[in-house]
Amino acid sequence: MLSHTFQKRVRYAEVDRMGFVYYGHYAQLYEIGRAEMIRSLGLTYKDLEDDHGIMMPVLQLECRYRYPAKYDDLLSITTILKEMPTKMIHFYTEIHNESGTLLNTGSVKLFFINMETNKRVSCPEVLTNKIQFYF
Amino acid sequence: MLSHTFQKRVRYAEVDRMGFVYYGHYAQLYEIGRAEMIRSLGLTYKDLEDDHGIMMPVLQLECRYRYPAKYDDLLSITTILKEMPTKMIHFYTEIHNESGTLLNTGSVKLFFINMETNKRVSCPEVLTNKIQFYF
Amino acid sequence: MLSHTFQKRVRYAEVDRMGFVYYGHYAQLYEIGRAEMIRSLGLTYKDLEDDHGIMMPVLQLECRYRYPAKYDDLLSITTILKEMPTKMIHFYTEIHNESGTLLNTGSVKLFFINMETNKRVSCPEVLTNKIQFYF
Amino acid sequence: MLSHTFQKRVRYAEVDRMGFVYYGHYAQLYEIGRAEMIRSLGLTYKDLEDDHGIMMPVLQLECRYRYPAKYDDLLSITTILKEMPTKMIHFYTEIHNESGTLLNTGSVKLFFINMETNKRVSCPEVLTNKIQFYF
Repeated sequence: MLSHTFQKRVRYAEVDRMGFVYYGHYAQLYEIGRAEMIRSLGLTYKDLEDDHGIMMPVLQLECRYRYPAKYDDLLSITTILKEMPTKMIHFYTEIHNESGTLLNTGSVKLFFINMETNKRVSCPEVLTNKIQFYF
Repeated sequence: MLSHTFQKRVRYAEVDRMGFVYYGHYAQLYEIGRAEMIRSLGLTYKDLEDDHGIMMPVLQLECRYRYPAKYDDLLSITTILKEMPTKMIHFYTEIHNESGTLLNTGSVKLFFINMETNKRVSCPEVLTNKIQFYF
Repeated sequence: MLSHTFQKRVRYAEVDRMGFVYYGHYAQLYEIGRAEMIRSLGLTYKDLEDDHGIMMPVLQLECRYRYPAKYDDLLSITTILKEMPTKMIHFYTEIHNESGTLLNTGSVKLFFINMETNKRVSCPEVLTNKIQFYF
Repeated sequence: MLSHTFQKRVRYAEVDRMGFVYYGHYAQLYEIGRAEMIRSLGLTYKDLEDDHGIMMPVLQLECRYRYPAKYDDLLSITTILKEMPTKMIHFYTEIHNESGTLLNTGSVKLFFINMETNKRVSCPEVLTNKIQFYF
C-alpha cells in the first residue's frame, strides 16, 4: 500500500453560501492529492503528459460527504493506492480537518491514454517502477 | 418517475488542457440540472432555503465518464427522480452532447436540514406536494 | 458599435459565503458574453481556434463591482465593442439583474496569436469581416 | 509598506485548453495572497468575519497578464500594501514563476461592511493595529 498526505487550506472561492466547501470542489482536492503523491515518488503528472505522452482521463468518481469542510480549514488530504495499477489506477482519498475529523472520502479510477496513438494502454513503466516497491 | 432536461453550453473556463470538461465540473452540471428540475415544478431551490428554511447538503456523489464533453458543446442535462424523496432525495443525471451521445451519468443523494434547528428532517411538504403527482 | 445581450442564471457553485457571486467569477461571465457575441455574428470562438488557428489570450481585465449578484439571479450580460479590433480587441461588459440594476461593469482586452507561428497577429479577417458592418 | 509572499502550485483544474491558467482564476490567486498576508499579521480574514462582524466586498479588480502561468508551475504570489487602509484597502499583487519571471500583476480594492448594520465602515482597528507598524 502507498499512502501520502498533503495539506491544503480552504479558500473563499471554494465555499458556498451554506459556508461549506462546494460539493463539486472535492474532485479538485482529490486531484491535488494524487498529483502530490506522484510528485512524492520523484515523478510529476506533468512529466507523464509532456515527456511520456501519457494522459489519464477519469473513468469514475465517488465522494461521500460526512462533515462539511469550512472556510479557512486546513485540510489533510490523504491519498491511498491499495493495489498496483494495471489498465486502471484507483486512488482512494480521505480528507480530515485540523481536529482530526474525517470529513470526506473519495474514490477515483483513471485509465491511461497514449497521446500519440490516442489508444488506451496499461500503466506506464515509468510509474509502475516507482510504485512497485510499496506492494 | 420525473424527468427534466436542460441545456447548457460548455465554457472555456470549464475545459482543461486535454480539451475536455474537467472531471470535477460535472457536479456543477448536476446541480444545474436539479435546480432547473425543481424550477420546472414551480418552486426554486432558493425558495427552499430562503422561504422554507430547508437546506440540502449532499451525502453522496457518483460520476461515470463515458466520453469527454468538449469546449462549446451544447450539453443536454437530463435529471431523473426514480422514487419519491423520503429522508433523502436521489437525483440521477444523464448528459448527452448534440449528436445524442451519452457522455456522462451521475447520481447525487442529498438530505434535508431544517436551518433553524440545524437538524435533519424529511423532504418538506412544499416539495413532495409538487412531486407526488409523478409517482 | 456592436452590442449583444445574453442571459445566464447564477448557480450555487458561483456564490460565496456572503451569498454573493464570487468576485473572481465575473471574468467567466465576460467570457460567456463575448463568446455569445461572436456566435451571434455567425462564427464561434471555437472555430477561430480550431479552424483558423487563432487563439486570443487576455492582456488586461478590469471589473467594477457596484451591487452583488446573488444566487439564482437571472443576469443579463451585455457585451459591447466600441471600436473595430486592430492588434487588440476590447470588449466592454455590463451586467444587470432582472430588475434592471447595473451590478457590474467589465473591460477585457485580448490579442491574437497565430497558433502555428506562435506569433502575435492582427485581428483575423474572418472576424473583422463579420464586425465591420457595425462600424 | 507591507509585503508578503506565498507559494501556490497551479492545478489541472485551473488550466484551460491553451495550457494556461484561466484568466479568471487570478482573482483567486490574489485572494490567497491577501488572506495569507493577513494571517502573517496574526489575524485571519475568517476572524474578521466571524469574530469582528466585518466583511470585505471587492469594489474594483485589475489584472495585467504578461506571461501565462502554466500547469504545475509553483507560483510566488507577492501581496503589497502601499498605504494604510482607510475606508478602503488596496492590495497590489505580483505573481512570479519559479524562474523569477513576472507573469501577472493585480490590484484589488475592497471596502468594509459592518455585518450587523450592513453599513460601510472604516478599516477596523483590529486590522489597522496590526498594519500601522509597517507605515
